[in-house]
Amino acid sequence: VSWELTILGTSSATPAWERFMTAQVLRTTTQTFLIDCGEGTQYQFRNYKIKTGKLGHILISHLHGDHFYGLMGLISSFQLQGRKEPLHIHAPAGLAEILTVHFRCTQFFPDFPLQFHAIDQANGQVIYDDPQLTVMAFPLRHRVPCFGFRFQEKATLRKLVPEMLPPSFPFHLMHLLKQGEDVVFEDRVYEARRVTLPPRPPKSYVFCTDTAFFEPVIDFAKGADLLYHEATFMEEHAERAFYTAHSTAKQAATIAQRAEVGQLLLGHFSIRYQHLNGLLQEARNVFPASFLAKEGEKWQIGAD
Amino acid sequence: VSWELTILGTSSATPAWERFMTAQVLRTTTQTFLIDCGEGTQYQFRNYKIKTGKLGHILISHLHGDHFYGLMGLISSFQLQGRKEPLHIHAPAGLAEILTVHFRCTQFFPDFPLQFHAIDQANGQVIYDDPQLTVMAFPLRHRVPCFGFRFQEKATLRKLVPEMLPPSFPFHLMHLLKQGEDVVFEDRVYEARRVTLPPRPPKSYVFCTDTAFFEPVIDFAKGADLLYHEATFMEEHAERAFYTAHSTAKQAATIAQRAEVGQLLLGHFSIRYQHLNGLLQEARNVFPASFLAKEGEKWQIGAD
Repeated sequence: VSWELTILGTSSATPAWERFMTAQVLRTTTQTFLIDCGEGTQYQFRNYKIKTGKLGHILISHLHGDHFYGLMGLISSFQLQGRKEPLHIHAPAGLAEILTVHFRCTQFFPDFPLQFHAIDQANGQVIYDDPQLTVMAFPLRHRVPCFGFRFQEKATLRKLVPEMLPPSFPFHLMHLLKQGEDVVFEDRVYEARRVTLPPRPPKSYVFCTDTAFFEPVIDFAKGADLLYHEATFMEEHAERAFYTAHSTAKQAATIAQRAEVGQLLLGHFSIRYQHLNGLLQEARNVFPASFLAKEGEKWQIGAD
Repeated sequence: VSWELTILGTSSATPAWERFMTAQVLRTTTQTFLIDCGEGTQYQFRNYKIKTGKLGHILISHLHGDHFYGLMGLISSFQLQGRKEPLHIHAPAGLAEILTVHFRCTQFFPDFPLQFHAIDQANGQVIYDDPQLTVMAFPLRHRVPCFGFRFQEKATLRKLVPEMLPPSFPFHLMHLLKQGEDVVFEDRVYEARRVTLPPRPPKSYVFCTDTAFFEPVIDFAKGADLLYHEATFMEEHAERAFYTAHSTAKQAATIAQRAEVGQLLLGHFSIRYQHLNGLLQEARNVFPASFLAKEGEKWQIGAD
């Protein structure tokens, strides 16, 4: 089963041209993540019939309003929908303060467990871990502390070729073979490289917004199946991109190319661009497997 | 010129059935007001092409999220649009604290003057006054401090009948006649009741949400051209209305009838009602001039 990414918002700063504020839902085998939560995210959940039952973790990249002003409304609505499951919020520390003031002033406190996890400045901080995947936060270069996220499936197992094994072959030895170890059974050696097929490559997704062109991202995005990288501007506005700590489409593509990712998804578009083909062409000149993020579109990440 | 009310949201608590969170724009001759600012208000501004140039005052009825979670996004967007004009926010005091924490944590401070005015518990507090109209806040009965608003045009002037006056008649005496005073000019008495027509009735609009059935509202809504009153539930859920401090459609109509308003506009509908005809019929049984508020619809208040 592949992971599924649903784009809910691609506009930077303010709504324009039917584009919403940043938000994405990543559904993995074990967990569903909401990444950023701009104003209107709960409307988009309804527009695209996003199921929230398995949504346990919300990740907020940074504390600019267009990336989190939808959070309080979403939490309120979860409460009204009778949510019981715990909700984990990962964000720069200031957000805890904002949530606390809201809860106190509105006299609304969720009945479901709400746990806040501060993302600090550490490089490559693991903020989520389960038997199937980890999520790592890493620093971007923006005007306020800002983090990218890498969703990394753990090493997958080799595949058994059943006809290579006797019917009585025990399960615990099968598991060792899947992990790539050779085993002995009834005086015979079974070599993993002979009786199993190589594992499929682990899935990975990397989310980078907001950020100026920032070379350390290349390592964190290395080899990802899909990289979402902000492309607020075109090269003709490179100076403005630099000044506001955003990227151009060409810069996003340069990161994608040097990180050798599978595909690049551009987003966080400036309201100055009604039509986005210019950004797409600029990126494709550097990295052909570039695409435009669009509200409501789904991306499959990895395949079994 | 009549006043114009544009409905931007009619849902209670959470979005449903294409209904947005509470927000309305009232355009008067001198000033434009935004009344409540639920999440998504700035999207509705775009959807309905609301001009914000003359929008100088935002009134927030109470600090439940569905009535103000769109405020921070709107302020941010005003900044991005280059707003220079002052913005006045009238709301229960806690909102100042919420705004302050946001500004500090997001490191965003508007460049235009932003002035906060706390609405306190006083009965009939005048929160806005200009030569043409006043706005009064008055208490409702809800689970947190909550205020209704009465927009009241000031006494209008009588109309001169020019052919009843000599060509040389001086302006300052005309003004006295318009105010209803008799004057003497060139040894002749001009009686206001003879040389002028009665003034047209002053316009008035009253906004009441959220509130349980609350008799003091009747006085504050007295004779209004238009009353917007919440009707979260139908009578069959009267107990739930009481428990949550909301009104039924019948209760809203009872207020309208006893306040002898011109028309009643129902809003703040519970998500349990996809179709609203039941609420409308229930209200019309008590007060025939009842109507349903609907996103994007405009209401003309008063006529010249």
